[in-house]
Amino acid sequence: MDYIQILGLVAAFLTTGANLPQTYKVIKTRSTKSLSALSFSMLFLGSITWVIYGIYRNDIPVMIANGLAGSLHGIILFMKLTAKNTKS
Amino acid sequence: MDYIQILGLVAAFLTTGANLPQTYKVIKTRSTKSLSALSFSMLFLGSITWVIYGIYRNDIPVMIANGLAGSLHGIILFMKLTAKNTKS
Repeated sequence: MDYIQILGLVAAFLTTGANLPQTYKVIKTRSTKSLSALSFSMLFLGSITWVIYGIYRNDIPVMIANGLAGSLHGIILFMKLTAKNTKS
Repeated sequence: MDYIQILGLVAAFLTTGANLPQTYKVIKTRSTKSLSALSFSMLFLGSITWVIYGIYRNDIPVMIANGLAGSLHGIILFMKLTAKNTKS
């Protein structure tokens, strides 16, 4: 594995893993006021599209990274859409 | 351009463009309470890493998509870190 591949893996780890603290925060606090429903809808749909792209390209890392990210986007989106209209 | 490339472009458009409504919402409402600082720090660093990866790979779409996304992550992160400790 060369340095460029490692760089790509670090990048993928950061942008995929970044969804974990946001998902944790939403589940723990139930606070979704500041989140954009449109933004997370696009992220959710985009991740699914990346997974399909990865299947066609037979690209396992793209499938896994976006499958994970998309699942977390789906959880956040669900929490946002089902949240009651409170101040939080 | 084949169908798989178009699928990849649609995916890139969705996941990059998804940052626009969230950035707009944060700037308009100044509400960052529900956002995870750690999440957006990782997204910001991850996007920069993807841009460097794209430069090494001479991959223009990766550079542009992540350059745009990273700029928006940077704006959201700045708003989050400079927000006063209010209820919003």
